Amino acid sequence: MSSYLGVGVSPGNVPVYHGSNLKVIDRRVRVAELILRCLICGLAILSAVLIGTDTQVKEIFSIQKKAKFTDMKALVFLVIANGLAAAYSLVQVLRCVLSMIRGSVLFNKPLAWLIFSGDQIMAYLTLAAVAATAQSSVFAKLGQTELQWMKICNMYGKFCNQVGEGIASALVVSIAMVVLSAISAFSLFRLYGDNKGKSDERW
Amino acid sequence: MSSYLGVGVSPGNVPVYHGSNLKVIDRRVRVAELILRCLICGLAILSAVLIGTDTQVKEIFSIQKKAKFTDMKALVFLVIANGLAAAYSLVQVLRCVLSMIRGSVLFNKPLAWLIFSGDQIMAYLTLAAVAATAQSSVFAKLGQTELQWMKICNMYGKFCNQVGEGIASALVVSIAMVVLSAISAFSLFRLYGDNKGKSDERW
Repeated sequence: MSSYLGVGVSPGNVPVYHGSNLKVIDRRVRVAELILRCLICGLAILSAVLIGTDTQVKEIFSIQKKAKFTDMKALVFLVIANGLAAAYSLVQVLRCVLSMIRGSVLFNKPLAWLIFSGDQIMAYLTLAAVAATAQSSVFAKLGQTELQWMKICNMYGKFCNQVGEGIASALVVSIAMVVLSAISAFSLFRLYGDNKGKSDERW
Repeated sequence: MSSYLGVGVSPGNVPVYHGSNLKVIDRRVRVAELILRCLICGLAILSAVLIGTDTQVKEIFSIQKKAKFTDMKALVFLVIANGLAAAYSLVQVLRCVLSMIRGSVLFNKPLAWLIFSGDQIMAYLTLAAVAATAQSSVFAKLGQTELQWMKICNMYGKFCNQVGEGIASALVVSIAMVVLSAISAFSLFRLYGDNKGKSDERW
């Protein structure tokens, strides 16, 4: 508390963020981070369960064919990516809650770098998994007549719908991860700020 | 110049980065940014040209079949994403060169936000395009016997090889964009730094 006030008064600093103002931003950022991480954890589990448990049996000329997510490698990739995202978010939620209880602010550069790197990796990983699965789903749904790839969603309608729900949920996870990685970039790189811009114009 | 020295002396600042130290980091970051943007511009054009000009004609039972990149929607997406990345990088290279000639440092928050947002969007866009295309290529190369999707690279070997080179080049583009988006996040968010950590421990 006194350190915040101290900054506001110190002669060498620009009063762009007063102590109280900064505290409000800090708290909002932290609450947003916690909410997003909880959201990711829940939706990633939902997506993995939706896709992982999805099966449909179809009888074609008395031959039983069973569709399951391992038939398509992209779905396996998506389930793994969602599982990783859920586990990672759970650890991060614990860290957020712990730091809120202890009331400490993140000034530890190695930890900030670790969180930043983790968030970046998870954001790109989940997005790549969603993009690859979306591409596969387009083939499954629409086929690709030029390549003689048939639409398989005609045969496995219920299976495809449930996969679609899983992908929608994974898409929300990846968008939330993108926002989170921007937040953790903010938390990290402002530690490198030094107010050297004070003699230049500032908008 | 005098502004850098001014910061080093000012009483309210922590001497984590002395003026000269900061200048060296600043110059290195700027040179790295310029090199990466030039690399992206070149490789994105190369990738778009490699894929866009790729055709192969195959005669099957006296019927001519022509493979081109528009047969697969993911390749169209990749060509568009690479075109956008090339155009965007060209504008950014001009901005980098201009700011180097004028010797100005980035203290303009709206501009920094613009660059940060642009880099983020391009990074996620190129990565999603590469992931979707990679998924399509796996199907084309290996087929998916469970779904009765045939390998088409057996038929169009030369076509597939050239697409592969285009994807490899696009992959380098997307990795470079990821690094660049971290650099622009650094450039933006350190403007929000306020050295309030000076009374806390600092690693």
